Amino acid sequence: MNNPQSEIHNPKSAIVLLSGGMDSCVTAAILASEGYELNLLHTNYGQRTEGKELSCFHAQADYFKGARRLVANIGHLAAIGGSSLTDTHIEVSPANLESKEIPTSYVPFRNANILAIAASWGELIRADVIAIGAVEEDSSGYPDCRREFFDAFERTIDLGTRPETQIKIATPVITMSKAEIVQKGVELNAPLHLTWSCYRSEDLACGECDSCALRLRGFRNAGVNDPIPYQQSRQ
Amino acid sequence: MNNPQSEIHNPKSAIVLLSGGMDSCVTAAILASEGYELNLLHTNYGQRTEGKELSCFHAQADYFKGARRLVANIGHLAAIGGSSLTDTHIEVSPANLESKEIPTSYVPFRNANILAIAASWGELIRADVIAIGAVEEDSSGYPDCRREFFDAFERTIDLGTRPETQIKIATPVITMSKAEIVQKGVELNAPLHLTWSCYRSEDLACGECDSCALRLRGFRNAGVNDPIPYQQSRQ
Repeated sequence: MNNPQSEIHNPKSAIVLLSGGMDSCVTAAILASEGYELNLLHTNYGQRTEGKELSCFHAQADYFKGARRLVANIGHLAAIGGSSLTDTHIEVSPANLESKEIPTSYVPFRNANILAIAASWGELIRADVIAIGAVEEDSSGYPDCRREFFDAFERTIDLGTRPETQIKIATPVITMSKAEIVQKGVELNAPLHLTWSCYRSEDLACGECDSCALRLRGFRNAGVNDPIPYQQSRQ
Repeated sequence: MNNPQSEIHNPKSAIVLLSGGMDSCVTAAILASEGYELNLLHTNYGQRTEGKELSCFHAQADYFKGARRLVANIGHLAAIGGSSLTDTHIEVSPANLESKEIPTSYVPFRNANILAIAASWGELIRADVIAIGAVEEDSSGYPDCRREFFDAFERTIDLGTRPETQIKIATPVITMSKAEIVQKGVELNAPLHLTWSCYRSEDLACGECDSCALRLRGFRNAGVNDPIPYQQSRQ
C-alpha cells in the first residue's frame, strides 16, 4: 500500500487475555496474524489449577515472541467464593453439555474484573483492542461471556476513561465451535500443545469436567489429536 | 475480620466502597441511616498513603458496628502505573481547583476495577446496592467519577451476572459540595475524625494537594473544624 499514513502509523496494539487455555491461545494467534502487537494479560484468581495455567501463560507468551506480559493477582475473587473453581468445598461437577443451568464453575462477574484490569493497562499503553477468547458454545451458562455483556463493557470503558482512549473489545472466536477453534489454531500454528483446559488437575487432564469434555469433543470433531496428556487415556 | 461469605441477608443490603476518605465515610453513614445492612469494601492499589487509608477503613468499619468487611489487594494498578498516586516518580501536583485537566492523580479506570470486585461480592451475598462516594465537584477531571459512567457500569452488571442479580449503583453524595458533605456527616454523626484525604502523607496531612485543598475548603465553607492534624497549621 502506498498510503503514506500507513507508514507513519505504529502497529496496532492489542491486549489479549491469555488464560492458559485453548480459546485465548487461538485468540492471540488471530490477533498476531492480523498484525497487532501483543500485550498479554494473565490473572491468578485463586482457581484450583492456578499454577498450571500460569506456566502455560508464560510458555505461550514465550512462543509469541516480543509480547509484553502482565500477571495480576486477584485472589479476592477466591476469598469472595461461590464457585467450584475457587472453593474446594464445592465439587467441580461432571460435564453436562446439554444443561442450560449456570455451572458451579461460574465465578461471579469474573470477566468484568479481568476486563477492568485490561482497560486500565490499555488506557496507559494506548491499546486499540482488548481481545478475549469467550466462546458462546461452551459458556452459554456464563452471563459474562455473552457479546451483549462485552458491548456494555465497551461502553463503560468509553465513558470511564480519558476522552482520547478508544478501546474496542474483540471476541474473534465467540461464535466458533470448539472444532472450528481447533482448526483455526492448527491453521495459524497456535501453540495448542502449551494450553491447559482441565478445571480439576494440573498434571494429567481429568477428561471429565465441563472444560475437558468440551475440549475433547472439539478435537474429535476437528479430526485432530489433542496433544496434551489425559488420565486413563480418555482421549 | 468477618468472613465475606457469612450468611445471607437482611431486608436491604449494601456494599459500600470505603476508601478511608470523607466522602465514602459519609456515604456509608447515609446508607446506614436508610436502614441498609453495611458490607464494607476497601482496596489497596499501591497508593502512597495505602497504610493510612487501610487503618482508617478498619477504624470506620469498627465504628459502623456489625458491618462485614472485605479488603482486596489490587497492586497490579500500581504495576501498570501512570498515576502520581501510585508512581513515586510522578509528583503529586499542588492543588489547582479551577483546572479542567485530568489531574496527575488519575489512576486509569480505577473505579471500574473496584466496582467489579464489589459486584462479584454483591452477586454472592445478594446485595441490593453498591454505594460509592464519588463527587462531581472534586472529580470533574476523573472520567470514572461521572454518573453516566456509573449508569453504564450498572448495565454491565445487569448483563454480566445471573438473571436474578439486580444491583443498583448508588451515588448519594455525587452532586453535593464538599461543604454539604461535611454538614451531612456532622448531621449523621459520621466518624469524620477517622477519615483521611491527603494524597501525600500519612501522619500530618500536607494541606497542599488537590484532596487536602478540597477538604479544607469544604470544612471552611461548612463552618466546621476539621478534626484531623495538618502540617504547619494550614487549617
